[in-house]
Amino acid sequence: MQAYRSLALTFSRLQALEGAAGILGWDSQTLMPDGAAEGRADQLATLRGMIHDLLTAPATGEELARAEAEPLGDAERTNLREMRRIHRHASAVPRDLVEANSRAVLRAEMVWREARRTADFPLLLPHLAEVLRVQREIGQAKGAALGLQPYDALLDGYDPGLRRSLIDPLFAELRAVLPGLIEAARARQAREPTVLALPGPFAIERQREVCLSLMRAAGFDFRRGRLDVSLHPFCGGAVDDVRITTRYDETDLMRALMGVLHETGHALYEQGRPAAWRGQPAGEARGMSLHESQSLIIEMQAGRSREFVAFLAPLLRETFRGEGPAWNSENLYRLSTRVEPGLIRVDADEVTYPAHILLRTELETAMLAGDLSPADLPGAFNAGMRELLGLDVPNDALGCLQDIHWPGGSFGYFPTYTLGAMIAAQLFESAAAAEPDLRPALARGDFSPLLAWLRTNVHAHGSTLDTEDLLVAATGRGLASEPFLRHLRRRYVEP
Amino acid sequence: MQAYRSLALTFSRLQALEGAAGILGWDSQTLMPDGAAEGRADQLATLRGMIHDLLTAPATGEELARAEAEPLGDAERTNLREMRRIHRHASAVPRDLVEANSRAVLRAEMVWREARRTADFPLLLPHLAEVLRVQREIGQAKGAALGLQPYDALLDGYDPGLRRSLIDPLFAELRAVLPGLIEAARARQAREPTVLALPGPFAIERQREVCLSLMRAAGFDFRRGRLDVSLHPFCGGAVDDVRITTRYDETDLMRALMGVLHETGHALYEQGRPAAWRGQPAGEARGMSLHESQSLIIEMQAGRSREFVAFLAPLLRETFRGEGPAWNSENLYRLSTRVEPGLIRVDADEVTYPAHILLRTELETAMLAGDLSPADLPGAFNAGMRELLGLDVPNDALGCLQDIHWPGGSFGYFPTYTLGAMIAAQLFESAAAAEPDLRPALARGDFSPLLAWLRTNVHAHGSTLDTEDLLVAATGRGLASEPFLRHLRRRYVEP
Repeated sequence: MQAYRSLALTFSRLQALEGAAGILGWDSQTLMPDGAAEGRADQLATLRGMIHDLLTAPATGEELARAEAEPLGDAERTNLREMRRIHRHASAVPRDLVEANSRAVLRAEMVWREARRTADFPLLLPHLAEVLRVQREIGQAKGAALGLQPYDALLDGYDPGLRRSLIDPLFAELRAVLPGLIEAARARQAREPTVLALPGPFAIERQREVCLSLMRAAGFDFRRGRLDVSLHPFCGGAVDDVRITTRYDETDLMRALMGVLHETGHALYEQGRPAAWRGQPAGEARGMSLHESQSLIIEMQAGRSREFVAFLAPLLRETFRGEGPAWNSENLYRLSTRVEPGLIRVDADEVTYPAHILLRTELETAMLAGDLSPADLPGAFNAGMRELLGLDVPNDALGCLQDIHWPGGSFGYFPTYTLGAMIAAQLFESAAAAEPDLRPALARGDFSPLLAWLRTNVHAHGSTLDTEDLLVAATGRGLASEPFLRHLRRRYVEP
Repeated sequence: MQAYRSLALTFSRLQALEGAAGILGWDSQTLMPDGAAEGRADQLATLRGMIHDLLTAPATGEELARAEAEPLGDAERTNLREMRRIHRHASAVPRDLVEANSRAVLRAEMVWREARRTADFPLLLPHLAEVLRVQREIGQAKGAALGLQPYDALLDGYDPGLRRSLIDPLFAELRAVLPGLIEAARARQAREPTVLALPGPFAIERQREVCLSLMRAAGFDFRRGRLDVSLHPFCGGAVDDVRITTRYDETDLMRALMGVLHETGHALYEQGRPAAWRGQPAGEARGMSLHESQSLIIEMQAGRSREFVAFLAPLLRETFRGEGPAWNSENLYRLSTRVEPGLIRVDADEVTYPAHILLRTELETAMLAGDLSPADLPGAFNAGMRELLGLDVPNDALGCLQDIHWPGGSFGYFPTYTLGAMIAAQLFESAAAAEPDLRPALARGDFSPLLAWLRTNVHAHGSTLDTEDLLVAATGRGLASEPFLRHLRRRYVEP
């Protein structure tokens, strides 16, 4: 097992370097002074380069080959499979293409900030075209090495095993059902009493206290993590050091609370990774769809459930000394589950959110296949928004310029948001069936039955199972749309 | 210049990795959750290992040899000299000795915390003995490679060019003069009106505001740095990202203020490094003595000067709504320059501080030479405290266990504190002579004449000059004790 042992050491060094990069990335979005940006970019580029070099070093490839022939147990063999997967992805892309991508993305992201600010798509266009060109090359290079279509190869980088052949029928079904569902949800809403906004302002220090107490209730381990502030909320950091962020708005209480529950879901997954696999690929979280499912199961499935909101309402009323009908739990529930087609993806509710993803998935597959030129993106985007959500896009800042993903080179990432929502519904349905106390516990502000189920059925697996196999083990079937659609109908349509 | 250019790239990568380690180190002392300590240790050990590997790689040594023969300008040749110096220090110590040192230090520091808490020297003894054993080996290995005595080789690692032959006469002179000086200072103090303590408590938020405004006054660039809180104040971070810390005490206002001025002095040196040498050894700060001189010139020479305290007193009185005679500038000045022999080095005033350093320097040179066994350290320490400061050490926590330096493996570091104090006095004397407005400006809370002089005469040199040459260029002579003794006599002894 000499080669395997040496690989295990290499991968634990890789994870240490990833952790270092994770903390530095977190710092650059939370605390870093402006003038440090250039130096920080050097630090991260150097770390990324060393990670790539270590991973693609000839010695690593040779050891992977030799380890195959060693007498390994099942567990080690699983870990070796994951090592090989990571190695294949990294070594499929030549170094000059990695660097071309870094350069193109760095420039495009910088220009994108200005283009979004001024709603100036032509400003971004040449840079987006360059990122797309490089991403197509990466897709082809990875595809050739992995025996996959280019888009599948990119998907596989975010979500091992994910293929268009899985996504396409699920998304086609959603596309067929969604318009009717949105209409029905809005019709029911129209029959219900008017939703009252919570009257602010909400002192930020108190919002933070409530957020911390919700994190504690959900099971966040503060010995191994933190909550801080950043412009764009995220979950980052390193192993045993999971750092989530939020942004407080004095006029909008629910945004920070629900945002924190969302990031807490991501964090619980990271904190629940199997300790026995510390530092090893088999111990890492499995893919972005499953990761998103863990955030959405805490925020959407549990956090916006009627049960949990019934617990939350008096807590908020007391904390903010609220008075009047806006603070009762029925109004708070309707406020937390309001459906309203809008232009901005990150502000979308649970029902209209998939429309944003369906559109972006169609557009990025078309761009990657060469069927849609970046120059035609605004037109196609706006047509899609009208078709899917009935909205006119007044300018590109509220349209195809709103997300960083494409200038950031993250082609193949968007589908994981909606796959995550589907997985969350499927897991929650099974968890609630298996644990009769799960829903009643939420009404007491107690996430522990849900978390215990997730620990056993999701987190503890690390990367030892593919997402599809994990779902079969946890829910008795592979990924399906029914639980998600059932959830949406129950919560938003049924009387 | 191919070899030189390749080396320049290697060293800028090394500095990026050092910067990454600097931010991670800062984070671990300010924000890191407890449970992340093991993972952080892995991250830092991996980074340190990669820095060592990159620096001692055969390619680096070969390029250094080839670059010698290349047609370089004077500037490049200076940079190459510094590269070679860093390379020689790193490659002098075999990798197994580097690792033995890391292990010994990690264990000794951990045990030291407990030993200090319980004043239990025997608990630390075997671990200290192991650290000393390894440090002696390192001193011998570096000495053999650099052609130096072991202690000189260790000194050279903190302060290039520093030798016992420089320290010994200076410290011998101090040792002869100091007892009389302390006595005379205390005698004058006894004749003066009783010093009144500032009546607290002092709200921490207001202390922080004053600290920030002092940093601003001193010239700290907040676009390239921060102020935060840690248990032990320090100056760390990375290039263009200088992070200083302090600790606030609601009952003691001057501790945080003067501590922040001290760390600001370190930070100004870092922020003033020559931009043209960004990422290169020639652009780095020159040695620990000079670094300490920059903190002491801001804190001790300028910050506790009668002029600056006259500016500070009304500011503090207003900020904390102070009333009564304790707040007048004469009392504040006497409070800031109070002399009082004490057991704890880090709490010592400017006059008694050198006694702590003389003692530690004598003890560590004796330990390193094998003339003092670690088992005999407490006895020797306590005898020295009685001889130098007339104090009985009631227990080892207040004696030889108080500092982390020896369990931390930092043999050869202590002398730089007092050398820094001497350099600060020498530089300040020359600066004040060259800039007639320097002292009057301090009375207006304006450090800019002092900073401008330091920028030109110290900071801009980076590592292009040795400390001794820099002093000759800046003050017309090499390091001498007279300016320091003159300063002490003027401030503390003369009527």
